[in-house]
Amino acid sequence: MEDIVGALAAIISTICWLPQTIKTWRTRETKDLSLPANLLILASVALWLIYGILLGAWPMIVANIVAVTLVGAIVTAKLKFG
Amino acid sequence: MEDIVGALAAIISTICWLPQTIKTWRTRETKDLSLPANLLILASVALWLIYGILLGAWPMIVANIVAVTLVGAIVTAKLKFG
Repeated sequence: MEDIVGALAAIISTICWLPQTIKTWRTRETKDLSLPANLLILASVALWLIYGILLGAWPMIVANIVAVTLVGAIVTAKLKFG
Repeated sequence: MEDIVGALAAIISTICWLPQTIKTWRTRETKDLSLPANLLILASVALWLIYGILLGAWPMIVANIVAVTLVGAIVTAKLKFG
């Protein structure tokens, strides 16, 4: 039971940024996005990635490489388009 | 070493939503926020909360109660202010 819940949580955590990344790069509108929030989110997924590497936990590594990429793209858009 | 990285990741993951929640409720501007993304984020932190409860892991429980509250407030604002 907890394995199913954990796996589902991990999958959704990995893909949840995708609609925001697509929307932000399609519209180039970032006014309502908080830069501090997105920088903190980027820091947190980067730290989870490092943590996964330290533990050798490949599902964490894969999930957080995807998350760093997607959140990094949102932060880049915010810095680029204001 | 991995304990420090993990603890730091957990702390930042817990508070990272706060600037977005404050910004969104202060400005009431949600146009640039993706509703599907925020619903998926809410689903993911809710599932991590359930996972924490199933494992009896109190740091996960506390962190994800905070996250559900903050992300829930962002989703509420998006639904309310469009």
